[in-house]
Amino acid sequence: MTPANSAAVSTDADTQASNANSPEHNMMANAIRALAMDAVEQAKSGHPGMPMGMADVATVLFTKFMKFCAQDPSWPDRDRFVLSAGHGSMLQYSLLHLLGFEDMTIDQIKNFRQMGSLTPGHPEVDHTPGVEMTTGPLGQGISTSVGMALAERMLNARFGDDLVDHFTYVIASDGDLMEGISHEAISMAGHLKLSRLIVLFDDNGITIDGSLDLSESGDQIARFDAAGWDTIRIDGHDAAAIEAAIEHARTSDKPSLIACRTKIGFGAPTKEGTAGSHGAPLGADEIEGTRTALGWPSAPFEIPANVRDSWRVAGLRAAKDRAAWQARMDEAPDDVQAEFERTQAGSLPNALHSEVNKLKRGFSDEKKAVATRKASEAVLNGLAEVVPELVGGSADLTGSNNTRAKSQTSVTAEDYSGNYIHYGIREHGMAAAMNGMALHKGLIPYGGTFLVFADYCRPSIRLAALMKRRAIYVFSHDSIGLGEDGPTHQPVEHLAALRAIPNLNVFRPADAVETAEAWEVALKSIDRPSAIALTRQNLETLRTKHTDENLSARGGYEISPSDGDAKATLIATGSEVEIAMAAQKQLQAEGVPTRVVSMPCQDIFNEQPAAYREDILRPGTVRIAVEAGIEMGWQRYIGDKGGFVGMDSFGASAPYKELYEHFGITADAVAQAVRERL
Amino acid sequence: MTPANSAAVSTDADTQASNANSPEHNMMANAIRALAMDAVEQAKSGHPGMPMGMADVATVLFTKFMKFCAQDPSWPDRDRFVLSAGHGSMLQYSLLHLLGFEDMTIDQIKNFRQMGSLTPGHPEVDHTPGVEMTTGPLGQGISTSVGMALAERMLNARFGDDLVDHFTYVIASDGDLMEGISHEAISMAGHLKLSRLIVLFDDNGITIDGSLDLSESGDQIARFDAAGWDTIRIDGHDAAAIEAAIEHARTSDKPSLIACRTKIGFGAPTKEGTAGSHGAPLGADEIEGTRTALGWPSAPFEIPANVRDSWRVAGLRAAKDRAAWQARMDEAPDDVQAEFERTQAGSLPNALHSEVNKLKRGFSDEKKAVATRKASEAVLNGLAEVVPELVGGSADLTGSNNTRAKSQTSVTAEDYSGNYIHYGIREHGMAAAMNGMALHKGLIPYGGTFLVFADYCRPSIRLAALMKRRAIYVFSHDSIGLGEDGPTHQPVEHLAALRAIPNLNVFRPADAVETAEAWEVALKSIDRPSAIALTRQNLETLRTKHTDENLSARGGYEISPSDGDAKATLIATGSEVEIAMAAQKQLQAEGVPTRVVSMPCQDIFNEQPAAYREDILRPGTVRIAVEAGIEMGWQRYIGDKGGFVGMDSFGASAPYKELYEHFGITADAVAQAVRERL
Repeated sequence: MTPANSAAVSTDADTQASNANSPEHNMMANAIRALAMDAVEQAKSGHPGMPMGMADVATVLFTKFMKFCAQDPSWPDRDRFVLSAGHGSMLQYSLLHLLGFEDMTIDQIKNFRQMGSLTPGHPEVDHTPGVEMTTGPLGQGISTSVGMALAERMLNARFGDDLVDHFTYVIASDGDLMEGISHEAISMAGHLKLSRLIVLFDDNGITIDGSLDLSESGDQIARFDAAGWDTIRIDGHDAAAIEAAIEHARTSDKPSLIACRTKIGFGAPTKEGTAGSHGAPLGADEIEGTRTALGWPSAPFEIPANVRDSWRVAGLRAAKDRAAWQARMDEAPDDVQAEFERTQAGSLPNALHSEVNKLKRGFSDEKKAVATRKASEAVLNGLAEVVPELVGGSADLTGSNNTRAKSQTSVTAEDYSGNYIHYGIREHGMAAAMNGMALHKGLIPYGGTFLVFADYCRPSIRLAALMKRRAIYVFSHDSIGLGEDGPTHQPVEHLAALRAIPNLNVFRPADAVETAEAWEVALKSIDRPSAIALTRQNLETLRTKHTDENLSARGGYEISPSDGDAKATLIATGSEVEIAMAAQKQLQAEGVPTRVVSMPCQDIFNEQPAAYREDILRPGTVRIAVEAGIEMGWQRYIGDKGGFVGMDSFGASAPYKELYEHFGITADAVAQAVRERL
Repeated sequence: MTPANSAAVSTDADTQASNANSPEHNMMANAIRALAMDAVEQAKSGHPGMPMGMADVATVLFTKFMKFCAQDPSWPDRDRFVLSAGHGSMLQYSLLHLLGFEDMTIDQIKNFRQMGSLTPGHPEVDHTPGVEMTTGPLGQGISTSVGMALAERMLNARFGDDLVDHFTYVIASDGDLMEGISHEAISMAGHLKLSRLIVLFDDNGITIDGSLDLSESGDQIARFDAAGWDTIRIDGHDAAAIEAAIEHARTSDKPSLIACRTKIGFGAPTKEGTAGSHGAPLGADEIEGTRTALGWPSAPFEIPANVRDSWRVAGLRAAKDRAAWQARMDEAPDDVQAEFERTQAGSLPNALHSEVNKLKRGFSDEKKAVATRKASEAVLNGLAEVVPELVGGSADLTGSNNTRAKSQTSVTAEDYSGNYIHYGIREHGMAAAMNGMALHKGLIPYGGTFLVFADYCRPSIRLAALMKRRAIYVFSHDSIGLGEDGPTHQPVEHLAALRAIPNLNVFRPADAVETAEAWEVALKSIDRPSAIALTRQNLETLRTKHTDENLSARGGYEISPSDGDAKATLIATGSEVEIAMAAQKQLQAEGVPTRVVSMPCQDIFNEQPAAYREDILRPGTVRIAVEAGIEMGWQRYIGDKGGFVGMDSFGASAPYKELYEHFGITADAVAQAVRERL
């Protein structure tokens, strides 16, 4: 619609509008409101206001538009629904219950926020069938949805309308739109003209601190217009207006924002329209008053039979879409079916392992000194040929991260058939979009930036780990080895900080061969994100004898044995493995048999059997760890008597070799640390 | 200017425009261009394109408007200049050199990006006189400037126009404006009507990946309009247009965006207007061609005498402002002078220590079970009375973070005399604005959010640590102890991840008394940011005997001695100290003399003398650490034979007591860990 239409701002006549709704609609929406307020009351915590405010919008969306199958919640061509305002989880649980998602029984609703229930405080993907992503941290839902909507278009370009043809709907709050990540997301969505993305903005004018105008005076409609979105503002309690707006949005050639003016806590006699209904139980009196105001006669957790029937009809409405899709799928050529199913399942092509070995053998034979970011590019050139579902990208550092394979073509608003995304200078938006692609299924996203800017995307990385999704971060420029750009660009604490996140692989390969191995393990880690830290500076090829075995797959291994019974063990990662090997040479020349362990992935090493770990770490030897980062986390490998050679401060701006000298990360220092402990 | 004026878009006639500039202007701007390209060439790395593109804008700004004193770069009432696009550091170094900042000799320029020079790859505050903040990570400069401009207005409200009356100018790039944090910053600036903030946007249409339209199609002018800014687009090579735009911006009642259409690498014969001039030396041939194109006759690093004279005149222009200000300052009442100087120096009022002791004594006497977030509120109620430069705020969690002292009043666009800021749901923007206030001097900022959302502001926290600025983060809801909100809201890795950042104090007080002590140490840490992690759940008061000594100031101390010669040492933080003390009781009842160490701040403890640390840690005892977070970082305290009771996965949604049981963080588990090691 034209900006002029955006002026259709709702008035105080909101409740009049809802009086114009059909009684059936109102009762269906009230069922959501009642379940939400009663569940929060029973749990003694939670957020009733948002579900009560957005009940009308959700009712229209799910009864008139959403394509889903309650009996098969993960049907690939379903519409996606993301509750970006995840604190309003009772909205989603109420919908799942009312629409007949089998697992979402009334007992689950009664156990809202209790241990082991399907109704945790914020929605959790996989945990609760019908939930598309884990939300709660604001801004993540709307931004992740961009990746879902993009994946839909990209898979549509590959598999056609018959197999991939769905929408992504989002309910977002003021908080979602205030978060910075939303800017990155809406810019990206506008740029890529993701017309299948429809955001329903719960425009209720209330935040936790009170009225929105305490902290916000921007114009969201104008802002989304500026980003190339279709926009409209409607009365979010007017069912007809909601229906018309969604209907229009579905036909737009742009992503759509529907700003729904709502009253938070709709129906609550004293708390409606106030922060008081946002994040706490309403209390018995207020709940009684709400029942009266809404004309909702039933006891807590009871739904009148006719209302339940109306919802069940809506729940069954979509089943025919599922059947029609299956028929089309059955008619598709066998190879298309197989490829669709393989990529949906996340299985890798058989050719992967042989391709990786071809690459490894090539690196071992060539014996070139090469930056691991360049090695990674060579690996990607190979992988892109055999793993067509691989989707690359970079936050505007393509030539620095070396993330683009030769064969990759750019994804654009005019042509979604490509497989490389120019994310722009939007690290956080990139990581969220990668989560969206991984959640959508059918694609394996990787994206690059400098390691130091992992901080910018950390909230989305954490969510990938929590949601167990395979997103692969290419983090180049991984230490003071980047040189002149100085301390703002030199990661020091980032390896430790990333290793701290549960269920995240952090790789730091020591040469081209380990780089290929890291990529293979990352791709095979189907339920875990991976970060691959890569150098700017050239590194010797250390693994000059080819082996088909992926040695990095155990996280750490002996890369260079000692001459005779080892007295010392040097443990290093990435660019410091060659420093450790130079120290090994010195020490062995002095008659100190020394072995070197390369530890490309602590996280995986920690999961190895104790006997393996002990064999690699050799507690009886003098142990020194070497990494151009902080010591945190290394103590477990070196023990009380061990030593660490690395950083304990921020870096500095200078050519990198001078920095290594300046900060004392040298073969001499490593050898000396051993001598002091012999 | 009205939005209609924004349509004054530049045409391809850019170079014509610059032909209309005075020859003197052009030569002055060319001096910047020459120094930038020659320094980058000599360093063999760096970014010549931006300084060359923005040389005209910078020349007008610094010769016509900027208020500064080259002889006294930290004069309090100077205009602030922030190079948000920090990669263009040679722009700033050239300006400092040409304007006569004494330390910035031509030798420093020749040593661009070399070890120990005043000309590191990206500008670094304190390191280089005249540099207001460390920039490089995109989006930070423009967002930090919001805090500077806000501090200016707040101090103006306190000290009046005579003492505080200056502008904050920013040069920002496309990258700065694509970063999500810029959304938070411009919304905040628009909301607070920071009319002294003027952003000069280097609108060059080029990013590292190539043309901007690879990744961006939004309308920046419309976007800033939507956020309540004054906007205009001009030809960034037209000196008269630049002057008129800045002149207008200075009189606007809104923050101003001046989009300056420029050609990156202006003057370079083949690389002008291309990504090729962005981030690499131009090369000898291109540099020769540029000299010819610009009509710049001098050898590298040589400035014609007349050009040098013109710049020196500009450099001296501002000295009279400094003198006039000093005269006004000398006339101010003594107490005003003293207070201004005290707060500018960052010294604390003498009443602080006695106030803290009053609070501590009160807590010890009351012996109440209270959440440390509530204790923190009580502390703030006291501190706000004696530390008037304290400025509070929260990212829309005021009532949850308990960040607002009773006496504090809100800062609004209409009245800057308050001392509490409603940052909105903008954690990153908040942390950047806090950096800006701390950099500006005169205020001590603290701001709250949930600990898990420390991830959202991490890039700004890192910068605070790198810049050595006193920003204080109030991170409540610091563990699974927050209960029902579940894993998205439960920090697990965050304490470790924050401790990983060099030069950041991470406090986790065990009770109300330690909370007061943490605040005192944080305030006294003038060159270091501090994070204070606080509980949602109630904690017993453990420090029931008052002592004037700040025990937390040593980072860790024995909070409960053993009955007899200790066989075990339990080391804990925050809410787990009372669990450790319950375990101590069990163990001592069994005849195992056990002591408990509270470790409110590892960072400070690590800085204590070895003898003190050994006395506290007692390596001869069985050592168990207890913290409702991950083990990373604890090994150094417990040793090879020690144990850890904590988390090794994400949390879950349930009442908190059940979660502690579920994850095995209990007195029983701690006692058992000791027994297994006796």
